[in-house]
Amino acid sequence: NLSSYSLIIFSSALKNLIVRNKLNAFYFLMIFTSSGAGYHSESKAKEYKHVCKRACQRAVDRLRAGGLALEAVTAALMELEDSPFTNAGTGSNLNLSGEIECDASIMDGKSLNYGAVGALSGIKNPVLVARRLLSETQKGKLSAGRIPPCFLVGKGAEQWAISHGIPACPTEKMTTSEYQTTQNPLSASDVCLTADLCPVGDILVAGEENNSACLDTVGVVVVDREGNVAAAVSSGGLAMKHPGRVGQAAHYGCGCWAENARDVSLYSTAVSTSGSGEHLIRTMLARECSTAMQAENTHQALLEAMQNKFISSPFLAGEDCVLGGVIVLRCCTCGEAQRSEDIQALLVEFLWSHTTESMCVGYMSAQDSKARTHISRLPPGAVAGQSLAIEGGVCRLGTVSD
Amino acid sequence: NLSSYSLIIFSSALKNLIVRNKLNAFYFLMIFTSSGAGYHSESKAKEYKHVCKRACQRAVDRLRAGGLALEAVTAALMELEDSPFTNAGTGSNLNLSGEIECDASIMDGKSLNYGAVGALSGIKNPVLVARRLLSETQKGKLSAGRIPPCFLVGKGAEQWAISHGIPACPTEKMTTSEYQTTQNPLSASDVCLTADLCPVGDILVAGEENNSACLDTVGVVVVDREGNVAAAVSSGGLAMKHPGRVGQAAHYGCGCWAENARDVSLYSTAVSTSGSGEHLIRTMLARECSTAMQAENTHQALLEAMQNKFISSPFLAGEDCVLGGVIVLRCCTCGEAQRSEDIQALLVEFLWSHTTESMCVGYMSAQDSKARTHISRLPPGAVAGQSLAIEGGVCRLGTVSD
Repeated sequence: NLSSYSLIIFSSALKNLIVRNKLNAFYFLMIFTSSGAGYHSESKAKEYKHVCKRACQRAVDRLRAGGLALEAVTAALMELEDSPFTNAGTGSNLNLSGEIECDASIMDGKSLNYGAVGALSGIKNPVLVARRLLSETQKGKLSAGRIPPCFLVGKGAEQWAISHGIPACPTEKMTTSEYQTTQNPLSASDVCLTADLCPVGDILVAGEENNSACLDTVGVVVVDREGNVAAAVSSGGLAMKHPGRVGQAAHYGCGCWAENARDVSLYSTAVSTSGSGEHLIRTMLARECSTAMQAENTHQALLEAMQNKFISSPFLAGEDCVLGGVIVLRCCTCGEAQRSEDIQALLVEFLWSHTTESMCVGYMSAQDSKARTHISRLPPGAVAGQSLAIEGGVCRLGTVSD
Repeated sequence: NLSSYSLIIFSSALKNLIVRNKLNAFYFLMIFTSSGAGYHSESKAKEYKHVCKRACQRAVDRLRAGGLALEAVTAALMELEDSPFTNAGTGSNLNLSGEIECDASIMDGKSLNYGAVGALSGIKNPVLVARRLLSETQKGKLSAGRIPPCFLVGKGAEQWAISHGIPACPTEKMTTSEYQTTQNPLSASDVCLTADLCPVGDILVAGEENNSACLDTVGVVVVDREGNVAAAVSSGGLAMKHPGRVGQAAHYGCGCWAENARDVSLYSTAVSTSGSGEHLIRTMLARECSTAMQAENTHQALLEAMQNKFISSPFLAGEDCVLGGVIVLRCCTCGEAQRSEDIQALLVEFLWSHTTESMCVGYMSAQDSKARTHISRLPPGAVAGQSLAIEGGVCRLGTVSD
């Protein structure tokens, strides 16, 4: 059912830089805001690009100050959550009861630790709770030998967050005013079901006309100056979802994945996903893409993963419209024999792929003074949910070792 | 850190049967109740065996009446949940607030559909809600093109269940009376932290003496007369867990897995897991064991999976006590060329493995008039959380085709 592919290598991002400053060492980050149902109108594109830029800058500030990947993904994601234009944190979709319930998760490629929250209300930055759960895991056992939780949901998650010093935030403050007027619970016709609707028929048309309700979920991947990767993702979930519904953003292996290189795996990889939550869960897309990235040719590997493990996945047999997007980062310090010994180089390959109409990405390296942003779109005539676009680039970053 | 292995092939279960009755065709099921902290005292062993037998019988009744794997796993699991001796449904552990919050999931190897509930209170049989979520998924999209949820948590899950005709059940009815007296919230010293505690020091001693609180989580795997596999799992979670904590029993790929044979995979596999929730999540043990079962030698493959993907998993680096157990079923209809054409034969291999002190398993085939049960224990001197036991058997079942 694959009617067409797009295989554009985003070569303008090709760089070959050696940074001779330890503090200004190698790091690279990429973020997305992805509209599940998938169409970024030209008027909205500008806003999404701005959000992505601010989030990139926030992460880079942290990296320049010596922060590692885990801190950088958290900082970027908080900025994305705080934007009323994204479907994460403030501005999240409302569920069937007119409430906001958020999912978020974070993974550290170095320790392979993980933290997630699902159906969380009343906290401004869900990723902060996921991050804190991850930190608590690293501290070891609780009293009486209990293992700390890595996944908390609902009211319990909210209580845990507050008891760990994360302030409560009334739902009203997280609901954008335009949202409150356009999104009337139980009325399907006047909302855009961002994450789970194919762009056919009159509902998308309604969504496009009334696109204040077409908000985007968000994700971030980072490699830091030590070569550690991290990934995180946050989502307000499907509009008019049933209360208690948890999507891929809170599912281990589905919303994000990060693994540093080690014995069996040459490359460090980090992945974040967006789109139709249940499809991303059942295909475990984040982990599948991470695994695929150990192959030699990244573009071919991602193409095959998106085609065989997502669009044509046996786990989604019978689904004729499979909507999702991924950002993928892989890097290695290999193959630098010809360079002088005091220089370490990191080869970073970064790609994005989506079956949705469009996806907004931003990225920035240690060398950039500002972030680059890009709205990736399916090629003309391609059918969303059945076709895919892949774009990406490569950059070489370096640092002088002591 | 593997101090010893046990590699006992449970050969008394070896059978070679051709059943010449279509209705009484091939099926096989296996269930467990697994004590996470891991010691089934002799006095309790009898009770657990009884529960396993009743659950086997319940599933077989359904299979004999023409039911398929999905119905059989549900029936067996409901029986296990209803027992006050298991840490699932009625008799579940209490959380820090003195409440019951249950996790359960179910997977259908034929459709690869999946349903799960997490931190669910007020419903007698959590697996029934997971089963119903799976069924609703198979019916297709909701109004306005929304994809039905596959995972619901907390209050929203409870409301969904009730609105789908599953009756509410007051928590008091699910709390066993002996539990109410022995398990005092916030007091660690007098409870057995079943799922997440290594059997060392005085807490286990307390648990053994007061072992009414040492209750077991439960799981089931089945292959039916058509060769379809299914798996399900249910757990009340760790005693004194934080409200909202969700364990592996509600995590896709972690608590259970079932996949029918198809092009790339020769064997149908079904897996259920129990033990330390966070360890089973981070290692995605159910799916890893399922993948491993495509290798030729099942015992070697399971041994390696338990050793490399669990005890010594890079995802659990630094953990010196990794507690878990699995039941694994794999089957194929291959290699029957020498038989007459009107006979189909199914080769079923069934195994269990655990790093806990003990695990109670029950199993039954189309040919058995009653279930067999067995308490598997680590060999003397083996250290729980660092060593493992593997046992299992093989049986050949058949049916006359029309």
